[in-house]
Amino acid sequence: MKILVLGGDGYLGWPTALHLSGQGHEVAVADNFARRGYDNELGVESLVPIEPLQTRIAVWKELTGQQIGCYIGDLTDAMFAYRIITEFAPDAVVHFAEQRAAPYSMIDRSHAVYTQQNNVIGNLNLLFAIAEINPEIHLVKLGTMGEYGTPNIDIEEGWLEIEHNGRTDKMLYPKRPGSFYHLSKVHDSHNIEFACRIWNLRATDLNQGVVYGQQTPETARDERLATRFDYDAVFGTVLNRFVIQAVIGHPLTVYGTGGQTRGMIDIRDTVRCIQLACENPADRGEFRVFNQITEWMSVQQIAEAIKSASPEDVHIDYLPNPRVELAEHYYNVTHTKLIELGLQPHLLSDTLIDSLFEITKRYAHRVRPEALLPTVNWRTPTATP
Amino acid sequence: MKILVLGGDGYLGWPTALHLSGQGHEVAVADNFARRGYDNELGVESLVPIEPLQTRIAVWKELTGQQIGCYIGDLTDAMFAYRIITEFAPDAVVHFAEQRAAPYSMIDRSHAVYTQQNNVIGNLNLLFAIAEINPEIHLVKLGTMGEYGTPNIDIEEGWLEIEHNGRTDKMLYPKRPGSFYHLSKVHDSHNIEFACRIWNLRATDLNQGVVYGQQTPETARDERLATRFDYDAVFGTVLNRFVIQAVIGHPLTVYGTGGQTRGMIDIRDTVRCIQLACENPADRGEFRVFNQITEWMSVQQIAEAIKSASPEDVHIDYLPNPRVELAEHYYNVTHTKLIELGLQPHLLSDTLIDSLFEITKRYAHRVRPEALLPTVNWRTPTATP
Repeated sequence: MKILVLGGDGYLGWPTALHLSGQGHEVAVADNFARRGYDNELGVESLVPIEPLQTRIAVWKELTGQQIGCYIGDLTDAMFAYRIITEFAPDAVVHFAEQRAAPYSMIDRSHAVYTQQNNVIGNLNLLFAIAEINPEIHLVKLGTMGEYGTPNIDIEEGWLEIEHNGRTDKMLYPKRPGSFYHLSKVHDSHNIEFACRIWNLRATDLNQGVVYGQQTPETARDERLATRFDYDAVFGTVLNRFVIQAVIGHPLTVYGTGGQTRGMIDIRDTVRCIQLACENPADRGEFRVFNQITEWMSVQQIAEAIKSASPEDVHIDYLPNPRVELAEHYYNVTHTKLIELGLQPHLLSDTLIDSLFEITKRYAHRVRPEALLPTVNWRTPTATP
Repeated sequence: MKILVLGGDGYLGWPTALHLSGQGHEVAVADNFARRGYDNELGVESLVPIEPLQTRIAVWKELTGQQIGCYIGDLTDAMFAYRIITEFAPDAVVHFAEQRAAPYSMIDRSHAVYTQQNNVIGNLNLLFAIAEINPEIHLVKLGTMGEYGTPNIDIEEGWLEIEHNGRTDKMLYPKRPGSFYHLSKVHDSHNIEFACRIWNLRATDLNQGVVYGQQTPETARDERLATRFDYDAVFGTVLNRFVIQAVIGHPLTVYGTGGQTRGMIDIRDTVRCIQLACENPADRGEFRVFNQITEWMSVQQIAEAIKSASPEDVHIDYLPNPRVELAEHYYNVTHTKLIELGLQPHLLSDTLIDSLFEITKRYAHRVRPEALLPTVNWRTPTATP
């Protein structure tokens, strides 16, 4: 099928594009290079060097003979959104093209506004483009497990059967997220559910856990196909960041007690989940939600796993938590729908951690250590940082 | 106390400012005149002529000796938001300053984007300004009963005790609204709840029903104090529109079967509810939700009430529903919190309808009848109308 990957130059968008192309789909990517721009702003780079998008695409063509289409532009520009849906005429659109870091959205007022503006308006333009040009197109939208927050009841897949005063209804699962970024995804989910209801669109909202890992079989074929690997306190996800801290001999920075628990997923499972969602589309009018995780761990457990896998001596530092979140809480997540479609999870194992240690060692000289420490504080509202 | 009314030139913002001033509070209004601009765009005017804001304020001063402060600007301009919070230094901010019409938000892509951008970003700027300048300020935010949609269970006041798999939590009431406008208010509610959680702000979210009526004791003191009275299919709320149709001898336009049920409130109760919310602030850190309605009726019942109150013969036309909504549904709303604070509801009675007939007859010559018919269709996504 024809699949358009929005945000196809990013950490997960690029491996997803390769995986879908490798599986025989006709793929195009679109990107505005916002993610590379954040690097310039924050003064950090991917630990692993990455090639320009055009080079990546050329290398993939050279290795496989497969051509990946390429659109450069911004979804908040409605003309661009309409143009790519018209020109590429996809069967499915995989939408990664959003600002994705909670700390980035909490830097100050303008970063909060930018995040919600960019994510919500880009997604709205996309919904209108799909609805007006071809409502058969399946929207596969990246959400986040962080949308749910940490309720004291089981987290279901997007919908919840509620009984109240003797009556029942199937309702959208109540969300209580923990950053302006996570809120932007909640706003998107509400907008998408409405679009499915009024325009009979088909959509899958993938509430993804924290992704770890850096390689998929496709990106590993050539180092020029590598995807980014972020270690900084703004864009680096927790497990990846801990590995880098272990390798360069820094203490692992656990926020608070480390009791906070997060759903996790291996990058190889992420690309497979996207494939499964695309190949098994939602029905017309259906707003379908999958919890895209394979297991969950507390931050403390993640730190212990990295510590025990490390050949060197590793210390754990407990920093005051810059975020506002529960230190200890109930966490139990239903995540059966992707398994039912055929996902075979890679659970966190020493094997994977070992491979991450290797990659990290190779590029350890590129780390800017001060970027590992959190500087964004949830409790301090500021007009400027 | 010092109360800043944002959107203080609008249908409800202006009577609220007068009411609060009349009750002895020190009031300032802020407005960007967007509502007067929509009139220009849509080619309609308030049925009742309204004076410029500066004239209104001067007349109030002349009649009562009370000075209402006046700021002209736009909340999406962060500098403006910060300036008014700094300069006026309010104890409470009443936030009406949002695009408020569901049909307007459904005209086309650009109106949907404008509505969410304007409402969400303006509200975000306000949250940052309050949090950074003075987190003691009580935010009184206008939401809408339309945020809830029409669930098959009782609608509670913003929060819901949920039992699931033997565990319980008090969660935000799940929302499933019916337009991009209503969605913008859901987004606001989520953003405000988060701001209360991380910055310890105090906020009251008023989920208001459909407002009817045009006069309060304060606006009735001088015709130059009149507030707007909208009859068009975009901004005219259902009861007001039916009265005008009855007076000019047009059939009442019921969408679909008229079985759809809506919470309602008299304009005199609206201004009193705002007063009660301001004078009884939420606690620091509290996100408090009141359902600001006094009764509910189906659209058919509203049409029948207008028909029976009309001295002339009135016909009812059943038009295909331009909206996507349930024609028949359960509707039962908890609305006790404002009563507990002292609200004494004016229920819909012939008395009020009579007074509306009088006002309407006086200005019937100003009606542009073609503006009464719906032209915005929920089912048709368009880039341009």
